[in-house]
Amino acid sequence: MPTNTATRTPVWKSILGTLTDDIAAGRYTPGDKLPTEAELARRFGVNRHTVRRALADMAEAGTVFPRRGAGVYVAQKPTDYPLGERVRFQTNLRAAGRLPSRRAHLIETRAADASEAEALALAPGDLVHSYDGLSLADDQPLALFRSVFPATRLPGLPDALRRHQSITDSLRAIGIPDYTRAWTRVAARLASPTQAGHLQIREGAPVLRTVSLNVDPEGQPLEYGRTWFSGDQVTLTLGDALPENEPEKDMDN
Amino acid sequence: MPTNTATRTPVWKSILGTLTDDIAAGRYTPGDKLPTEAELARRFGVNRHTVRRALADMAEAGTVFPRRGAGVYVAQKPTDYPLGERVRFQTNLRAAGRLPSRRAHLIETRAADASEAEALALAPGDLVHSYDGLSLADDQPLALFRSVFPATRLPGLPDALRRHQSITDSLRAIGIPDYTRAWTRVAARLASPTQAGHLQIREGAPVLRTVSLNVDPEGQPLEYGRTWFSGDQVTLTLGDALPENEPEKDMDN
Repeated sequence: MPTNTATRTPVWKSILGTLTDDIAAGRYTPGDKLPTEAELARRFGVNRHTVRRALADMAEAGTVFPRRGAGVYVAQKPTDYPLGERVRFQTNLRAAGRLPSRRAHLIETRAADASEAEALALAPGDLVHSYDGLSLADDQPLALFRSVFPATRLPGLPDALRRHQSITDSLRAIGIPDYTRAWTRVAARLASPTQAGHLQIREGAPVLRTVSLNVDPEGQPLEYGRTWFSGDQVTLTLGDALPENEPEKDMDN
Repeated sequence: MPTNTATRTPVWKSILGTLTDDIAAGRYTPGDKLPTEAELARRFGVNRHTVRRALADMAEAGTVFPRRGAGVYVAQKPTDYPLGERVRFQTNLRAAGRLPSRRAHLIETRAADASEAEALALAPGDLVHSYDGLSLADDQPLALFRSVFPATRLPGLPDALRRHQSITDSLRAIGIPDYTRAWTRVAARLASPTQAGHLQIREGAPVLRTVSLNVDPEGQPLEYGRTWFSGDQVTLTLGDALPENEPEKDMDN
């Protein structure tokens, strides 16, 4: 794979500068797809490798992000996702001005593993409904999730999950009007190849992983959920009256 | 740099297996320093590269972690750090059975930058006391922090920060008995070279970055804090009665 090792200011840097200026000037706005490498190579009269080098540098700087198989997009401000007592992923996204959607990957009923059984206060081997999927905002992947529910208590849930867009609506449909967050644990991880593929981010990109237990109004365990948020696109928030979500200066800069 | 490309099961894998068994058997317990590469090379009768390959694989698996300039250590369960209303880093750590300490890197009084002024409700250019440092548990770096405080309101704070181990004690010493968390924003990032150096983790390791505003009992902004937690060693928690912090199975595995 050829690399650019020019000692004077290389061509890719001037391309990087031009594209960065285009974004600053609003020619491309957050969420826009940039022209393809081929189109940019024609525009600048260089080869694709030179364009690729400039785009890689812009991705490093967080100005743009590549979506696997989809192209290179202008970075948006991260979406704030409140870690409130109420668990309303889609409501939260709408409040943030994003159009939420959800893609189911797998809905199955199986024996709980050890951590699922402990969290849901089940006996090892008790059945759970497991719901894997992808949460999107404006058709952009934001989070991978796996939620498990006590199966004997919620016999109608798998059908409801197939019929409804949201877990809240599905639970309401089977007679559970409300549920709240009992606890959440947040960790930082690096995206695995599978996660990177689903989230359309690069392998090793930062991921916010939350593990949560949601309970019904009587405090009975209802949903044990694990979510992997795209770290470049989501921040988790606590409390009110937060200032606007700007890229934070780190201690190096 | 030589690499191991044996087609049959390579030597480093058997070394990996032996060391993993040693840890499982309790010969090395969490927090223990493993023997040096040289010592392990002698023990197994191989060269350092082979040992290094085995240790690298174990670090990937999260069994051990290298501390820069200090050696390779058996991984501990991540420390839970509660994101409660009260902000008591050291109290929280003691509750988790760790011995907390703090190293000041820089205490200075300077003009607030834009985000600091906004968060603390100051005019641009107003003075803040800025406190940079490292939080440790059992002498192991857990988090880098930068806290800024309104300078005109807290004239005695820099002296107090030099005299006391904790921010809580320093604020109490200058007549502020209590403060609470108004809001927190949590993001996942990759450790920069400087952060990796301070936290003794590798560059590009996952980091939990929190940005918080703490207020006094009257709701006046008191501390605007940014913290970078070592993602492999800290998880942030909300709520009570969490199950024990075990390494989570990810969706790949």
